[in-house]
Amino acid sequence: MRQTLTYPNRPRVRASAAIAGAKEGAGPLGGDFDQVVQDELLGQDTWEQAESELSRRAIALCLKKGGLTPSALEALLCGDLLNQIIASGFAGRALGAPFLGLYGACSTVVEALVLGGALVDGGYRANCVCAASSHFCTAERQYRFPLELGNQRPPSAQWTATAAGAVLLDARRDKAMARLTHGTLGRVVDYQIADANHMGAAMAPAVADTLCAHLRDTGRSPADYGLIVTGDLGCIGRDILLELMKERGVPLEPGRLVDCGASLYNKEQDCHAGGSGCGCVASVLASHFLPMLADGRAARLLVLGSGAMLSTTSSQQGQSIPGLSYAVALEADT
Amino acid sequence: MRQTLTYPNRPRVRASAAIAGAKEGAGPLGGDFDQVVQDELLGQDTWEQAESELSRRAIALCLKKGGLTPSALEALLCGDLLNQIIASGFAGRALGAPFLGLYGACSTVVEALVLGGALVDGGYRANCVCAASSHFCTAERQYRFPLELGNQRPPSAQWTATAAGAVLLDARRDKAMARLTHGTLGRVVDYQIADANHMGAAMAPAVADTLCAHLRDTGRSPADYGLIVTGDLGCIGRDILLELMKERGVPLEPGRLVDCGASLYNKEQDCHAGGSGCGCVASVLASHFLPMLADGRAARLLVLGSGAMLSTTSSQQGQSIPGLSYAVALEADT
Repeated sequence: MRQTLTYPNRPRVRASAAIAGAKEGAGPLGGDFDQVVQDELLGQDTWEQAESELSRRAIALCLKKGGLTPSALEALLCGDLLNQIIASGFAGRALGAPFLGLYGACSTVVEALVLGGALVDGGYRANCVCAASSHFCTAERQYRFPLELGNQRPPSAQWTATAAGAVLLDARRDKAMARLTHGTLGRVVDYQIADANHMGAAMAPAVADTLCAHLRDTGRSPADYGLIVTGDLGCIGRDILLELMKERGVPLEPGRLVDCGASLYNKEQDCHAGGSGCGCVASVLASHFLPMLADGRAARLLVLGSGAMLSTTSSQQGQSIPGLSYAVALEADT
Repeated sequence: MRQTLTYPNRPRVRASAAIAGAKEGAGPLGGDFDQVVQDELLGQDTWEQAESELSRRAIALCLKKGGLTPSALEALLCGDLLNQIIASGFAGRALGAPFLGLYGACSTVVEALVLGGALVDGGYRANCVCAASSHFCTAERQYRFPLELGNQRPPSAQWTATAAGAVLLDARRDKAMARLTHGTLGRVVDYQIADANHMGAAMAPAVADTLCAHLRDTGRSPADYGLIVTGDLGCIGRDILLELMKERGVPLEPGRLVDCGASLYNKEQDCHAGGSGCGCVASVLASHFLPMLADGRAARLLVLGSGAMLSTTSSQQGQSIPGLSYAVALEADT
């Protein structure tokens, strides 16, 4: 299996938690989040500290739901979009757990699940939390424009979600929310997109690449999954993925392909192509899709994170924006 | 073992490679590097692309020395200091291998070895490359001041190494350079250092924390290691570590504690407290310490990466600089 890891012991998803901002709370999935915070500063002095607090709270809540004290947590695999992943770093400092900093852009929580799955499956860790966060205010000012500028956004733009999600994996055998069966690594794929407001187009080729690798490696077909869940391709990226998979001879059933970003906001919320950010797939997976496996509404899901390796430095130097995607296969713990 | 992973199959270090810049090549370890590049742009248009090329070349050379074609590489665990780890991302794009983006600041290559060790030991990957890079010109302008400013540097400042190092791990059983026996995860440790020119002080407490965890978890003492190798504490951070370990009742023998950063430059090279950067420990481990295990000059080494979670954003917001450290235990393949 060239890109796919198989977890014979099927690490259990013991708990998950998601906390989202007010705008996300007002969207179609608002009722699923464990908490919706109305104060975008979360009582902190800066948006960056607020994002870190969002991450910390989601992780702490996930541990609480899973009945684990912070001191019993054996690894925290964590990342975000900020330079030097400061939201995660400061959350890790507050929690005191063994920390593994990751950067897979918006696919980070799935990268964390692939690695955390191996650590738990192989007996290297008894448990771990996989988490990621994003915040509209921190990401927009870091990657695009000062918020005070009130820039108009093109229709292809996505809205960075203010949200954090955390998933607790463990090696226990009692019935859990779900089981992790496979993780597929992604390659850095570049279709030469250079527009920082067209992330779906930058990421869709990477998702297609990882999805094809997953199906090839496992011998499965798209029909083996009740749903194929993508991270934050948005409406445009989702359409591109459908096209790319058709071209590759593996057409997807549109009704069974759900994008977290495209599902996060109502049309009236003016978020154009949909949601994005590390916290998008992390929070929607934690609060919407994992519960579907837990209560029997779904038997098996494939979740593909989608990341755009966007950097203001490389963009200003004329470089394109490569994409990156990781996948995990999850099944009900029946 | 609370923070330490044990690798029962002892993944083999099949090959390692390091490429360094002219200044590093003129230092005491200059003769050890596989290549020394005189052109700090490596024929590229920008320093960032140059760092990415440095990383790509080191990884490609490591694969070549290990007799592995790039298409047979099963995972590239990689990171650097640049925002969104663009040096690694673009190197990953060029190499086409399954990519795992990491951020552990200057300890990244050791974080990669801890995770890569588990992936290979557990049979999830037949091989992987763990790599990291840094470049004086990219790091200084991102973290501190424009180079053109010609700022004076305080005595506690360290010099970001222009260097990249790569280590190939595999699951084969034939005699190799070395074997990986343990990996110890680090926690985010903060002693409230806020001076971006005093990294050794920010990192030393994290190194002490991880070192104590490693010794506690494994039941080993410092004397069980021929050498304890730290990443880039520099002269000042190294002295602080010696103090901290004495305070904790685990004094280290100064003659058996070697810091890669403190060893990288001659005193006349005006690098103050020593070298730093992801590429520092990566290149010195790959070109100086792993060969010592390979040719019998050392039987067992403990290598501790040291990272400072420095961010211009959080520093400007008045936050301190937390430290992070990972450790790997390596032994000769006798």
